[in-house]
Amino acid sequence: MKFYLGCLLRYTINTPSTLVFNIHVVNSNYQRISHEKLNLQPGVKFEEYIAPVSGNRYVRVNAPVGTLEVNYEATVELSDFSADPNTIPEVTIADLPMETLQYLYPSRYCQSDRLMGLVQSEFGELEPGYSRVSAICDWIYNKVTYISGSSNSETSAYDTAMQRTGVCRDFAHLGVAFCRALNIPARFVSAYAYGLNPPDFHACFEAYLGDRWYLFDATRLVPLNSIIRIGKGLDAADVAFATLFGSVQMAEMKLFVEPSQVEQLDKASTEAMAIAIS
Amino acid sequence: MKFYLGCLLRYTINTPSTLVFNIHVVNSNYQRISHEKLNLQPGVKFEEYIAPVSGNRYVRVNAPVGTLEVNYEATVELSDFSADPNTIPEVTIADLPMETLQYLYPSRYCQSDRLMGLVQSEFGELEPGYSRVSAICDWIYNKVTYISGSSNSETSAYDTAMQRTGVCRDFAHLGVAFCRALNIPARFVSAYAYGLNPPDFHACFEAYLGDRWYLFDATRLVPLNSIIRIGKGLDAADVAFATLFGSVQMAEMKLFVEPSQVEQLDKASTEAMAIAIS
Amino acid sequence: MKFYLGCLLRYTINTPSTLVFNIHVVNSNYQRISHEKLNLQPGVKFEEYIAPVSGNRYVRVNAPVGTLEVNYEATVELSDFSADPNTIPEVTIADLPMETLQYLYPSRYCQSDRLMGLVQSEFGELEPGYSRVSAICDWIYNKVTYISGSSNSETSAYDTAMQRTGVCRDFAHLGVAFCRALNIPARFVSAYAYGLNPPDFHACFEAYLGDRWYLFDATRLVPLNSIIRIGKGLDAADVAFATLFGSVQMAEMKLFVEPSQVEQLDKASTEAMAIAIS
Amino acid sequence: MKFYLGCLLRYTINTPSTLVFNIHVVNSNYQRISHEKLNLQPGVKFEEYIAPVSGNRYVRVNAPVGTLEVNYEATVELSDFSADPNTIPEVTIADLPMETLQYLYPSRYCQSDRLMGLVQSEFGELEPGYSRVSAICDWIYNKVTYISGSSNSETSAYDTAMQRTGVCRDFAHLGVAFCRALNIPARFVSAYAYGLNPPDFHACFEAYLGDRWYLFDATRLVPLNSIIRIGKGLDAADVAFATLFGSVQMAEMKLFVEPSQVEQLDKASTEAMAIAIS
Repeated sequence: MKFYLGCLLRYTINTPSTLVFNIHVVNSNYQRISHEKLNLQPGVKFEEYIAPVSGNRYVRVNAPVGTLEVNYEATVELSDFSADPNTIPEVTIADLPMETLQYLYPSRYCQSDRLMGLVQSEFGELEPGYSRVSAICDWIYNKVTYISGSSNSETSAYDTAMQRTGVCRDFAHLGVAFCRALNIPARFVSAYAYGLNPPDFHACFEAYLGDRWYLFDATRLVPLNSIIRIGKGLDAADVAFATLFGSVQMAEMKLFVEPSQVEQLDKASTEAMAIAIS
Repeated sequence: MKFYLGCLLRYTINTPSTLVFNIHVVNSNYQRISHEKLNLQPGVKFEEYIAPVSGNRYVRVNAPVGTLEVNYEATVELSDFSADPNTIPEVTIADLPMETLQYLYPSRYCQSDRLMGLVQSEFGELEPGYSRVSAICDWIYNKVTYISGSSNSETSAYDTAMQRTGVCRDFAHLGVAFCRALNIPARFVSAYAYGLNPPDFHACFEAYLGDRWYLFDATRLVPLNSIIRIGKGLDAADVAFATLFGSVQMAEMKLFVEPSQVEQLDKASTEAMAIAIS
Repeated sequence: MKFYLGCLLRYTINTPSTLVFNIHVVNSNYQRISHEKLNLQPGVKFEEYIAPVSGNRYVRVNAPVGTLEVNYEATVELSDFSADPNTIPEVTIADLPMETLQYLYPSRYCQSDRLMGLVQSEFGELEPGYSRVSAICDWIYNKVTYISGSSNSETSAYDTAMQRTGVCRDFAHLGVAFCRALNIPARFVSAYAYGLNPPDFHACFEAYLGDRWYLFDATRLVPLNSIIRIGKGLDAADVAFATLFGSVQMAEMKLFVEPSQVEQLDKASTEAMAIAIS
Repeated sequence: MKFYLGCLLRYTINTPSTLVFNIHVVNSNYQRISHEKLNLQPGVKFEEYIAPVSGNRYVRVNAPVGTLEVNYEATVELSDFSADPNTIPEVTIADLPMETLQYLYPSRYCQSDRLMGLVQSEFGELEPGYSRVSAICDWIYNKVTYISGSSNSETSAYDTAMQRTGVCRDFAHLGVAFCRALNIPARFVSAYAYGLNPPDFHACFEAYLGDRWYLFDATRLVPLNSIIRIGKGLDAADVAFATLFGSVQMAEMKLFVEPSQVEQLDKASTEAMAIAIS
């Protein structure tokens, strides 16, 4: 699948401010960028940083007072790996690649240590494997209501487990936290997503199963194979699409994601197949 | 049913201290005291206070350095009201007696306002009535594990909903908080209980349904008709069996509860009948 | 001092709803009502309830779909007791009237048990007495910023101690919680206040010192002798001016408080004198 | 300074378990290992992992039922950089190296986002620079009491700011969180420390100031130049000295740190000089 995507972000800058963006898609074996463009108005200098290991791409902009407009677009080809969910096991701590261990530990928005009781009670006796992470997504989908504006930047998985409302970010935090509480490495993924209505930045999560990171989306808002990754991290703290230092207001945000040629996107496939894009 | 019950509490007093006890059973239409004795060693003076409205009985003791031993015993006759659970409705806010309204509001250990999301998701669509409070007790019984020492004096219903472990006090707080979040007045009850093993102070709760307060015990440790009330309140903060001001350690605690004559206590009956003892 | 005061509350009722108001001033030795009027439009029936012990006055209204307008006015004469702050001691637990003990325990919004560490660190070594409660008010006044809309119905003293922003309700909760953590009985007071700009319901608190309840207001927005009490309770949960059950929106709220004749209100006096109005 | 240090850890393994250790000192320009030995009894295989970027060294051991004994020792030479505190400024977000930005964001135990209010109120108006981080350490040292066993694995900076008790880990979390809330990059450091009594793993923190990471220790238990780093990370979740998966109990823990030759360790120097060891 090939996608043409991008975003327009416009900010009102009241005092000289610094903005850090994580809006560039990752370039990887599973996700190849064939064209990409970043445009800033006014044409201030910016600095790009590619995080080692994750490959997340951050851009820092020092903006003068006035309006800052950020335009990003890219054409990306996804070639995801897919597998039969029934064949994908959980991995014991003894056998996990050591670089995945850090994704077992609690983080700001995914306090898995404080969710052990709930997780053992709800999922502890389920058969281990891909199906258990699917059961986690079902639980979230059934028990948490997606309501725009129902959470804020302080809302964590712990809160969402109680409040039972949230947005994609909260659904993803809950999935990550539940997996970690079962000793399944899990991480947060920010993304563009084709089919999201209204278009917006999306969030989902990955769990390490079998021999790789598999993608999960408890919101069920889009098929897994229409998710184009921006960043991955412990939780949303690592991959906010914009972090603002200074007196800054967002004035406008627009996203678009479209297939770059006519292709079939079959929603049903997400149910049947496990997808990995890392 | 007639019970002979009591407790022995022994404390090591390191500095002159004040202790407030709530160990006396309540004297009411449903619970008649025929004999009662309180003995303090050393024979310090004490002050008794019967709270207006609740009828809870508090004793304040100013203890000198050394050992304080408190011996309490009473003979009590219960004549509980029982009814067919299927006939007991929830009451609308419009029709509730106004003195029950205070039991709709959140308290220290029963933060019903913060549990609305969970409660709506888990119980919001159940048929209103006695059966819904029973469903709450089932949920607690099935999802929370009774483990001695798993909670402390700061543990609230909010915590227990997450940790899924607790003792009778935590089970009661959860029941109270869940009911309030459904606009059912609910209050905490401390009690002696026949059949508890090992003997200990017990906690359960009451919900206002139909035209009175019905008793519920999510621990299912004893039949409802073997519970002899000490105090009722918003939560455990109101009816701690002992509140210690000073440098005091508990050295010993013993309780006993026995039928004062041979009678039948049928566990099955608690399932079938709704009981009110207020 | 004599005040003429009142409020107009207008609600949009979307479904038949129940509203419970606590807007009537208390009638007591220190606060005598000489004239009072409550008007509801439409002229639905209402039920008044005077809580035993506290004397708080609640009104329950079952409102049909449409608009509900509540008009309340009263003329009240305050004859507060005042004393030299330097002569007012803290009272040991051993000597407190037993009916004040309940105000030592933590409540939903005043979790004094969880604030012990902070309170010991900040106030533990201050000289006991009226001056220590004044020091608490100074701390709150200096460290917490009054910002309209900075808190919500879930905000507790624990939160405010951290967030350092709030409104009068939060300032009062913090004062109550800090006092209780020092074993000083304290309770929440809702009130009309002369001089508040813009006019609004006010909140402050009382601490039991010497032989009575003294009034404190950490917001320092008005002189203590221009506060006319509505309700007192463990915290705001007990004395919300309006509790809404149903689909209801507030459409308008207006308050007025004026001296019923020309009198001197001297702000400086609040600094110099301790005031009791219970 | 040259140190000879090490630890003995003994565990009772009840079921086959996996243990992940972070007890090896880091090898860097500032901290050179001249000799090192790890011994496991029984002689099970283990896997070592050096985290990219941080250089933290983790060892994973799959232990059979029985006893596991871990012996580690090393000789390390510190050659810390020191500078005059008065010359060390804070760095604006615009000028920070981009790899330090991740240490501005909240983490599990350092929820800087939730501490903004307290931090602005307590430190917001202090002169920026090394001296402001020193003021943070003073605050922690003066307001938090070091009490062994007063915190647990769930205790976060948010909790400690309230409870005002903790151990070195909690002091470090608080320092990290406070710095981040002021937009100063900060990270957690686990370490061996010469002079700690009783010997134990130590924790302190680093803040990015001027052109490097400077070390701070709010416990003031040892001089800064006697701290030998093990790991650095967002918080303790990244660098636990042992993470246990399975049914495992610690049976014994011993540490030793000694100067490998006679040298002067001057406590006073820590006050006067800023030290960097990264």
